[in-house]
Amino acid sequence: MSHHYLPSWNLTKNTQAILDFVKSATTPGEDYIDPAERIAVFDNDGTMWCEQPMPTQFVFLLQTWLQEVHDHPELKDKQPYKAVLQKDEKYFTQILKQTPKDVMQLEQALTVWAGSTPQEFAAQVQKFFTTTKHPKYNMHYTDLVYQPMLELFDLLKAHNFRVFVCSAGGRDFMRVVAEDMWGIHQENVIGTAAEYEYVNGQIVRTDHLLGGFALGAGKTTHIFAATGRLPLLACGNGDPDIEMLQSARFGMLIHHDDEVREYAYDTGAEQVHSLAQKNNYIVVSMKHDWVKIFKNTA
Amino acid sequence: MSHHYLPSWNLTKNTQAILDFVKSATTPGEDYIDPAERIAVFDNDGTMWCEQPMPTQFVFLLQTWLQEVHDHPELKDKQPYKAVLQKDEKYFTQILKQTPKDVMQLEQALTVWAGSTPQEFAAQVQKFFTTTKHPKYNMHYTDLVYQPMLELFDLLKAHNFRVFVCSAGGRDFMRVVAEDMWGIHQENVIGTAAEYEYVNGQIVRTDHLLGGFALGAGKTTHIFAATGRLPLLACGNGDPDIEMLQSARFGMLIHHDDEVREYAYDTGAEQVHSLAQKNNYIVVSMKHDWVKIFKNTA
Repeated sequence: MSHHYLPSWNLTKNTQAILDFVKSATTPGEDYIDPAERIAVFDNDGTMWCEQPMPTQFVFLLQTWLQEVHDHPELKDKQPYKAVLQKDEKYFTQILKQTPKDVMQLEQALTVWAGSTPQEFAAQVQKFFTTTKHPKYNMHYTDLVYQPMLELFDLLKAHNFRVFVCSAGGRDFMRVVAEDMWGIHQENVIGTAAEYEYVNGQIVRTDHLLGGFALGAGKTTHIFAATGRLPLLACGNGDPDIEMLQSARFGMLIHHDDEVREYAYDTGAEQVHSLAQKNNYIVVSMKHDWVKIFKNTA
Repeated sequence: MSHHYLPSWNLTKNTQAILDFVKSATTPGEDYIDPAERIAVFDNDGTMWCEQPMPTQFVFLLQTWLQEVHDHPELKDKQPYKAVLQKDEKYFTQILKQTPKDVMQLEQALTVWAGSTPQEFAAQVQKFFTTTKHPKYNMHYTDLVYQPMLELFDLLKAHNFRVFVCSAGGRDFMRVVAEDMWGIHQENVIGTAAEYEYVNGQIVRTDHLLGGFALGAGKTTHIFAATGRLPLLACGNGDPDIEMLQSARFGMLIHHDDEVREYAYDTGAEQVHSLAQKNNYIVVSMKHDWVKIFKNTA
């Protein structure tokens, strides 16, 4: 397996292990994997793009809340609107310290998008991505996708893997940008999602979830529902990826250890790192294994 | 668009209309469709294979009930076991006259498969398909897939369509045979399905449905959840396909009018046929448009 597939990866032992895995899975021999079984699943936040200082979808949520309290000033003394108006970072830091499930429930509680069509939601998401920039890099969030991961997608696709993203974040939020940003179709994006109904010839969003949160064990059930299989390869970066990684035959963990080019942190990933050695996960060092971090920057 | 893609289709005006549609959707011009939007969705029973004298999955269900009452003789005076034991055709004819939803609820009520793993269910389905033959043709059910539809799949795939099956029948029942029978991956099979949970490192079936029945309007919501889109092309054969056909830009209806080679009936398709002309659906005549019906017979 040639390293030329992964130009943004240094040829370290981790990179070599990835190349070796793809080679053995696709070369006749005892480790050969039938193409039908070649499903690779990737977490999104912190695995496919930067999740600091807060996950992108949370930035979108804050904007939505701000617009909502602008349109309905009577909400101004209620949380989370009060905190949004007062730029109360402590309030949101506290929320983000909770589990992603709590954050999502907060979002869900809003029911902001219940009754809306996918076209309306997509327009709002598109606007967010074209108008909002990351505070540290001053670039659009879609430009902060990890270039090495895009190359890994290409390597896998060239070897007849089907590549999926499975995130605790919103399936429909990601699908808006999936095709341009990741080069995978919307049907390859799995995540927490509202249930929809069909009313007067239109798909319309309800205020409740379909199949629960794609988080922890929920990632495995969402992946199975979408694909009929558990993954051959899974890649994540945090504790909510533990079950997904355990359900895969080959596990990869992205380690945020580059305080100069990105961020260095282990918060929310303590347990999965403690499992990595026991389970033979490849722990990718962003600092040492990646020549460049983002698609459109150093 | 050459007719050589469809050797089991006579070159009628219907066949020509299909070829024209694929050509116009994939040739630069005003009807060109971006490849990302090229989603084609097919119903299963009566669209992809023979659904007479009863849908294949119902045959499987009868076998399961028979096994269940064999293992638990105390059930013998309860329905549906009593009818199974007495070969009470009238009882089942009555059930099949009801909506597919009633049939499925009956199946669901059994909770036969709650607590089982996908591997256990797949083994049971595989056994059914290798041991059970169709009463009229004396062939395995998987050999009774419609050859012209397989060729249509190939035509569409050759033009960068992604082909899906969406059935009111069981998603996991179809997925067992989808790859060999249809040449599409399990993730391209959409249908009514149980929710699963992840217990001790295993995917395990629960006794309740995920996202309701893939029937009528439920087909559109299942398709949207799976793909993020509504179909460009939809093809069905009965009234439960009405909403799916209405949600597509190009509609096809399979008409069972061949009493010699297959069956001739309009029961359960009265409404969709009355909409066909108004909505410009192509109504495929099995008798006149198809050179051969089944993959492995005349």
